Amino acid sequence: MAEQGRRPRDRMVYSAAQLVRERGVCATGVRDVVDRAAAPRGSFQHYFPGGKDQLVAEALLWSGEFAAQWVASYVDRARRPTPSGLFTHMVSQWKREFSTRGFERGCPVNAAAADLAGGDSPVNDPLRQALTGWEEAIVAALVRMGIPIRRARRLATLMLSSLEGAIMLSRVHRDVRPLTTVAAELGPLLDQAHPG
Amino acid sequence: MAEQGRRPRDRMVYSAAQLVRERGVCATGVRDVVDRAAAPRGSFQHYFPGGKDQLVAEALLWSGEFAAQWVASYVDRARRPTPSGLFTHMVSQWKREFSTRGFERGCPVNAAAADLAGGDSPVNDPLRQALTGWEEAIVAALVRMGIPIRRARRLATLMLSSLEGAIMLSRVHRDVRPLTTVAAELGPLLDQAHPG
Repeated sequence: MAEQGRRPRDRMVYSAAQLVRERGVCATGVRDVVDRAAAPRGSFQHYFPGGKDQLVAEALLWSGEFAAQWVASYVDRARRPTPSGLFTHMVSQWKREFSTRGFERGCPVNAAAADLAGGDSPVNDPLRQALTGWEEAIVAALVRMGIPIRRARRLATLMLSSLEGAIMLSRVHRDVRPLTTVAAELGPLLDQAHPG
Repeated sequence: MAEQGRRPRDRMVYSAAQLVRERGVCATGVRDVVDRAAAPRGSFQHYFPGGKDQLVAEALLWSGEFAAQWVASYVDRARRPTPSGLFTHMVSQWKREFSTRGFERGCPVNAAAADLAGGDSPVNDPLRQALTGWEEAIVAALVRMGIPIRRARRLATLMLSSLEGAIMLSRVHRDVRPLTTVAAELGPLLDQAHPG
């Protein structure tokens, strides 16, 4: 999905997600988003009557859906899907991002949580929704592999937690090693739960 | 260490750390820090000629030392220290924080990474230093338990990553369950590396 091919509204949501990933919610200005999206100045109010909160909320929901689809794509395509294969698939997206685009952009969910979860922002509900959608996609993928639902929920928590932390460590150290390490260390543990 | 007992300069560093944990670096204003620290208005420039960057840098270094000491205190005091015991000790600090003070405050290292790691802030060096000091304390604790250094480094990465991610998940869901889950799931894996 090339950025140019999308409508101005979609481009603004996409640009907001990218800026939040780079500098957090607080430092992401509506004007920067409009500029980066190459959208007409006056169009922001039209598309986002709820202002920056609405824009950031939609950017998070879009990101959550993207992450959920990335998870689902593994189970759809893998010949013999395994929990460790899924986790490697999730980690590989971030290793590729950092290797090809640099360490500028982290996870938008974590960025929004760092800036907003301590307060009463109206964006906290969509933030929770984005995270939950991602978690549910992991749980569904594990259940499709034959893992009981309660076990799947615990493994999803472990996978998401270690992925999110390793993204942060990788960015601070500007080195993908934390991602490689958590994938290698957790692989055997994750597959212990696998019936096949 | 009661807040009242400290000098104004220390109180400002402490207050900056608390505000960064709550709302991130961008939304933490110098004036808010001075107010919360009950410090004389004019004293900020005197103590922090490098401005907000210096203040945030010191808050991160202070936080990193606090975390490193928390790690060391476990090995100093435990009768039979184990890797899983250390991880439970690290997790328990956050479960207690969330249970007694609420979910307002996350990890200052993660908060600073979310806002700054994507750019070229002068605070990125102290941020890396704070994280490295914490990591090194975990590695040193594991080595004291008899774990070989290379293995200790990998386990430290896994522990820190899953702790940081679980802190974020717990704050978004306003539920300590992610912390409890990662501690329970990783315990056996961590102790596999333990000779005794």
